[in-house]
Amino acid sequence: MYLRPPKPIVTLTTDFGLADPFVGIMKGVILTIAPQVSIVDISHAVTPFRVIEAAYEIEPAWRYFPKGSIHVVVCDPGVGSDRRALLVEAGGHYFVGPDNGTFTLIYREKHKVREITNAKLGLPHPSRTFHGRDVFAPAAAHLAHGVRPAQFGKPISDPQTLRDLDPHKLARSWRGQVIKADRFGNLVTNFHVHQFPDVRTEPIAIRIGRKTMRRFALTYTDGEPGELLILIGSSGFLEIAAREASAQLLLRAPFGTPVDLEIG
Amino acid sequence: MYLRPPKPIVTLTTDFGLADPFVGIMKGVILTIAPQVSIVDISHAVTPFRVIEAAYEIEPAWRYFPKGSIHVVVCDPGVGSDRRALLVEAGGHYFVGPDNGTFTLIYREKHKVREITNAKLGLPHPSRTFHGRDVFAPAAAHLAHGVRPAQFGKPISDPQTLRDLDPHKLARSWRGQVIKADRFGNLVTNFHVHQFPDVRTEPIAIRIGRKTMRRFALTYTDGEPGELLILIGSSGFLEIAAREASAQLLLRAPFGTPVDLEIG
Amino acid sequence: MYLRPPKPIVTLTTDFGLADPFVGIMKGVILTIAPQVSIVDISHAVTPFRVIEAAYEIEPAWRYFPKGSIHVVVCDPGVGSDRRALLVEAGGHYFVGPDNGTFTLIYREKHKVREITNAKLGLPHPSRTFHGRDVFAPAAAHLAHGVRPAQFGKPISDPQTLRDLDPHKLARSWRGQVIKADRFGNLVTNFHVHQFPDVRTEPIAIRIGRKTMRRFALTYTDGEPGELLILIGSSGFLEIAAREASAQLLLRAPFGTPVDLEIG
Repeated sequence: MYLRPPKPIVTLTTDFGLADPFVGIMKGVILTIAPQVSIVDISHAVTPFRVIEAAYEIEPAWRYFPKGSIHVVVCDPGVGSDRRALLVEAGGHYFVGPDNGTFTLIYREKHKVREITNAKLGLPHPSRTFHGRDVFAPAAAHLAHGVRPAQFGKPISDPQTLRDLDPHKLARSWRGQVIKADRFGNLVTNFHVHQFPDVRTEPIAIRIGRKTMRRFALTYTDGEPGELLILIGSSGFLEIAAREASAQLLLRAPFGTPVDLEIG
Repeated sequence: MYLRPPKPIVTLTTDFGLADPFVGIMKGVILTIAPQVSIVDISHAVTPFRVIEAAYEIEPAWRYFPKGSIHVVVCDPGVGSDRRALLVEAGGHYFVGPDNGTFTLIYREKHKVREITNAKLGLPHPSRTFHGRDVFAPAAAHLAHGVRPAQFGKPISDPQTLRDLDPHKLARSWRGQVIKADRFGNLVTNFHVHQFPDVRTEPIAIRIGRKTMRRFALTYTDGEPGELLILIGSSGFLEIAAREASAQLLLRAPFGTPVDLEIG
Repeated sequence: MYLRPPKPIVTLTTDFGLADPFVGIMKGVILTIAPQVSIVDISHAVTPFRVIEAAYEIEPAWRYFPKGSIHVVVCDPGVGSDRRALLVEAGGHYFVGPDNGTFTLIYREKHKVREITNAKLGLPHPSRTFHGRDVFAPAAAHLAHGVRPAQFGKPISDPQTLRDLDPHKLARSWRGQVIKADRFGNLVTNFHVHQFPDVRTEPIAIRIGRKTMRRFALTYTDGEPGELLILIGSSGFLEIAAREASAQLLLRAPFGTPVDLEIG
């Protein structure tokens, strides 16, 4: 009756960093329960407690894993409080983590959300400070090992969601925000090409602070060295890049900085 | 005769960092000898040469792995000198690393320590600068692949140990130390709840520098934002936390800072 | 007809860092195509766009993996331009990455280089900004899964190479350069003991800036604390170390700093 994929994958996305043993401990818990699992780190560099960042970090990643993969996302400022633990089924994948809005973008898929209440599927005597180890890692491992979703707990219909994830309309433009600066200093915005398909064909302008960018580029090698360019990034979000330079250093626009988009 | 667990685990804890190829090279050595092994990183961010930090890093982690796991811990300022290489059996687990006190906390378990002297179980022509690659990774891999501990070398009874790992008694209090600041700025002390069970029931005070903390909390969500709290951390050590803030930034107490505990 | 090693290894070396989800996404792509693969990170801390650093990062690592391993190296400032994608066979290993000189040191082995042109062995609709995901990860995975090299594309004879990788002769000495400072502050040079075997037996002097080092050491524990020492590092390159200190901090010699070697 139980599904037991031959080589299931569990991915980990947390704000735990890699300097402390937290992530290694989670992997020990998973491999104790489900030795056959492949574990893949997505990122452990989510800014501590910044749930929206975790939501954006898993979004471009999960679709590149095989169906049936289990994605554990733990950015959990409310650990030990009465916030719920969730198991989400969406898009043929599973998601495990705290009920604090982490999965807001996942809920755009057809989804079913369960509260994890079956204490037998967690470690005995769970702490109130490290549910990554005591609740979420064991849940993911049991799921990978064939326990059916229904055994974790009952469906709920009111999971927490984050607001203001999408750009909103102003008088003459759209107002979005910077959602990250990547390793190369590219500033990723929350304008997604699926929501704004006209950016492919119409002239556009993006304003961040006092700077306005109009040059639409197809690759990071377009433009003059240092020139600020608009690109559709590899996960579909519009981003500002600078050839052989860091747009982040040029624009000094941290997470949450307003971004205005004009089309046409 | 040889034990060959179907999917053995080798964990790695080092001061090598992740920027250099050292850790990847160790994994290549291990997978060449024992392709079936699962390798898990605990931490590679141990401060270079600070053996005591390596001792504390593996301590909360190894119990969360299945029995028979092999834990390689390499913080090795004496590499290439005449310091011994060790294989330790304790608590149903194996530990491999230099004889410099790294395993002091492990020796609190019933244990057997061997000096690794069988050169056939290392790489040929070992360097004098990278025993992680040439001695410890191959030893762990051969062990994972079924070589019996006795083949590595003879038992020894005088392994090196670190002193001052435990708090000591002062006139009216106990004197311990800060053993780490974690990713969230929580200051972890060397007061373990197993040694100081009264902290659960008695009023306590912890003094670090000029600050005295008295508020005992159960979760990081207790207290006012920024308030300094005493918690029992997820590995059983008392720690100082600050809600939605960094106790480390508030107290500026680096590794080794004295911590005084009064109970009652 | 196809080779399908039972447990192939794919290594990853990039300038993507570990904070962004790029590396995790590449692993998802690989495991979707070839679930049986073991993936090992060599380093993701290559300085963005510094191809020569990627070339030096994979060089000491690949030989420690089993024959048949596949090494993906992506430091790719020209992504999306018309630079070619390569599959290299050398030394019994495979190498996959952009044609920008990354594999210059690999070409010292007997080698065959192919341009990857078979679009069926990449993701559909490849982006012009993330070929690590769309071209190189799938190529490595298909190779691991048994697709023969000839199916990727035709051999080429003119791959790009980096110049000035080797020291050159001055009037009385050899001029090389600093190729990295490792985690411990050891300054690694591009003088390899295979090219300069006399350093083992002759008196030598190494000059970096205004400092001249003459003390040849066998281990990092030789010398006085803080003394600058010359060693043959674990991958055969001469390096400058300082006992219990950082040669990098003492000499302030970044990547590319000239290094002069006198022998005899």
